[in-house]
Amino acid sequence: MRVFGIDCGTDCTGYGVVEWSPTGPMGSREPCLVAVASGGIRLPKSDTMPQKLSFVYRELMLLLAAYEPEVVAVEEVFYSANVKSALKLGQVRGVALLAAANCGLAVAEYAPLKIKSSVVGYGLAQKEQVQYMVTRLLKLSCVPEPADAADALAVAICHMHTAQTLLAQSGVKH
Amino acid sequence: MRVFGIDCGTDCTGYGVVEWSPTGPMGSREPCLVAVASGGIRLPKSDTMPQKLSFVYRELMLLLAAYEPEVVAVEEVFYSANVKSALKLGQVRGVALLAAANCGLAVAEYAPLKIKSSVVGYGLAQKEQVQYMVTRLLKLSCVPEPADAADALAVAICHMHTAQTLLAQSGVKH
Repeated sequence: MRVFGIDCGTDCTGYGVVEWSPTGPMGSREPCLVAVASGGIRLPKSDTMPQKLSFVYRELMLLLAAYEPEVVAVEEVFYSANVKSALKLGQVRGVALLAAANCGLAVAEYAPLKIKSSVVGYGLAQKEQVQYMVTRLLKLSCVPEPADAADALAVAICHMHTAQTLLAQSGVKH
Repeated sequence: MRVFGIDCGTDCTGYGVVEWSPTGPMGSREPCLVAVASGGIRLPKSDTMPQKLSFVYRELMLLLAAYEPEVVAVEEVFYSANVKSALKLGQVRGVALLAAANCGLAVAEYAPLKIKSSVVGYGLAQKEQVQYMVTRLLKLSCVPEPADAADALAVAICHMHTAQTLLAQSGVKH
């Protein structure tokens, strides 16, 4: 299974592609998670909002076509500093959900508490702890940049863990 | 000039197409505003949010292609009951702005106060007063349904009036 995580933002939208590798490090037969790709889509500051949204949409459509994931995972958002910033973030989020739907992909949403709990083992973990655990779980040499990419990888890992748990509960191995 | 007004909503998104008619009623030579079309795009209740957004996007793209407006006009949104509803509305708004951008159309945004002031002549007008004036200005036989369609026509009229004022100021006739 390959998951495409998206972390929506009004300045930069992060993405991270995660899949299971059938073999672990040093030839171990234990399957492990690997990062296929990650990065950030920075919105051009001089553009109007419709142009920015068109840019994010185009970039996401290209990435989804290139990495061919089976599912898209995004963070559920309940909180924002104020209504104005919530509206702005919602606009980017709408375009990200649309890109997934227009690629025929299902979208799984996870609450921030669930993501932190799944990645760090503690729902109220700090941002740095999440970044550290993302780096460790995916055996990366350094923390993924930008920070939004690490957040996108975190939500993808959360989906992997959740799917694994559901499979284990149903008695099927991944 | 033909304007496509959009009133974004999480249950129903209204649209209204307005243009200048070169002649007024009963053969008068006074140009007047006419409604080319209006209606509402109701989001299927059983769909997931990404499916709903894909539905709105597809419908708007079809309408924009059918009516070939020169510009899209939308209401600026500053207020929402809470952050959660602002995020939901933002998602629909993002998809509407994207549809305009992907059709190569410029988007003009107007504050609610400016729209009411332009249509009714009073920035704090009630919803019913706006609907009444939309019906009168466009010489319609009854109030457009759904209410979101009337709101979309109102923002389109606001754009027409604003453009007319700018033209008059520059000494050019529409």
